[in-house]
Amino acid sequence: MRKLLFEIAYRGDRYHGYQVQKNARTVAETLQDAIEAVFKRREGIVGCSRTDTGVHANQYFFHMLTESAIPERAAVTALNNALPDDIAVLDCREVPLEFHARYSVAAKEYLYKIWDAPVRSPFLEGLALHNRRRLDEALLDRCAQEFLGTHDFIGFCSAGGKMHDTVRTIYQTSVARTGDLVEFRVLGSGFLYNMVRIMVGTLLLADLGRLKEGDVTRILASRDRKQAGVTASPAGLYLNRVIYQNGALGGRSEKETESDKGNSL
Amino acid sequence: MRKLLFEIAYRGDRYHGYQVQKNARTVAETLQDAIEAVFKRREGIVGCSRTDTGVHANQYFFHMLTESAIPERAAVTALNNALPDDIAVLDCREVPLEFHARYSVAAKEYLYKIWDAPVRSPFLEGLALHNRRRLDEALLDRCAQEFLGTHDFIGFCSAGGKMHDTVRTIYQTSVARTGDLVEFRVLGSGFLYNMVRIMVGTLLLADLGRLKEGDVTRILASRDRKQAGVTASPAGLYLNRVIYQNGALGGRSEKETESDKGNSL
Repeated sequence: MRKLLFEIAYRGDRYHGYQVQKNARTVAETLQDAIEAVFKRREGIVGCSRTDTGVHANQYFFHMLTESAIPERAAVTALNNALPDDIAVLDCREVPLEFHARYSVAAKEYLYKIWDAPVRSPFLEGLALHNRRRLDEALLDRCAQEFLGTHDFIGFCSAGGKMHDTVRTIYQTSVARTGDLVEFRVLGSGFLYNMVRIMVGTLLLADLGRLKEGDVTRILASRDRKQAGVTASPAGLYLNRVIYQNGALGGRSEKETESDKGNSL
Repeated sequence: MRKLLFEIAYRGDRYHGYQVQKNARTVAETLQDAIEAVFKRREGIVGCSRTDTGVHANQYFFHMLTESAIPERAAVTALNNALPDDIAVLDCREVPLEFHARYSVAAKEYLYKIWDAPVRSPFLEGLALHNRRRLDEALLDRCAQEFLGTHDFIGFCSAGGKMHDTVRTIYQTSVARTGDLVEFRVLGSGFLYNMVRIMVGTLLLADLGRLKEGDVTRILASRDRKQAGVTASPAGLYLNRVIYQNGALGGRSEKETESDKGNSL
């Protein structure tokens, strides 16, 4: 019995999120169909995170137990041939049996893309939020720093989340512009349901002239969902990087991961 | 009677090229439908270039004669509301009656995107050529310089082109890498049918170890289509910049264009 860890990327706007659901096409179901075609049996898979309808992933991991002896590189090629073009398998490696794609996660980084121009981009349909008035990215960056540290994020969580513990730690955050594209990045220990999208919606209060420095701190302290901004569109959201606990991936593979991806805190 | 010049961008993979055709959806037909909805009559439009099925444009111009008094900014907004998301109107301005969107062109720049990685990108379906083996972009850049200057490009033209004069001048060319994305840019006086895609196919002979410095010069001199490479996929091709003759756009508007876009040779 081997435990295989797959690294993938996907464009999420044709899927009803990652997790398998009844009566809706999801990323997990599409992966399981491809795995069944390649491995000749339907294997259970465990993903690193649940992403919502329309959310994308530049890096996503899932694990799978298998009796198959198929070499890792051959599995990558065969799965890519069996998958649609909007999902790509980037890597496959064997991991220790105690590794868990979800529970071994130490931190995750999300990226949120905003197309900040009067006119839409024909190339970013479903891939970015369109904001028509020019954002002050320097103000947004200063406000975003107020998310840093350990806070109770209960005011940044949609109903439907079933979390008892709503305290999370944010390690890094930034807002930066490249031409008409504004990107928000946030690295944290974990994220509540819709938390990143509500963080973005709160920063975008600035677009209405309703955000100044100190406001994020005040809204966090209020622990009140109504004080925060709207839940921003899923179109701009990307799971960007997943960082595993030291040692979780096992010896040699982990070193390669760290040097290849810079995946250590 | 006013002559209006529209600047647009479009994602071409859902269209059978720019030019109106029977029994196929094209960019021009989609524009004319939107213009009819906004201007309340079907106006003829003249585009700056013909792009093939699947080819994109980061910058494209068309002109139109109209009796309508609609202000330029209002026309931009109304057309964007009437158009699908994969076509965007970026600007509209009044131009002298002697201006012609196609005949007043001084030079055009094309961009060709190659995703140069073993595995496809889920975000570049229809938007880039996928090349699996690592390209030597420095070699490609040196070979691309051999296109510079005035040459008879008859060997870089597909049958179906009805050109008598196959001499064109290339002003600038480059191949550069950003991560796994390799971009070929070429600025020239004009381009024959499929010329840029055959230039790319020729540079990609390098992928098979079949291109060394001096080969482009030799292939150009042969004037033989069979010596050049295949016609590369339309997916990677973008009309990137259109430069009009000095004075063609009229006084004030032209200065704005030049400073905004750097559109002067």
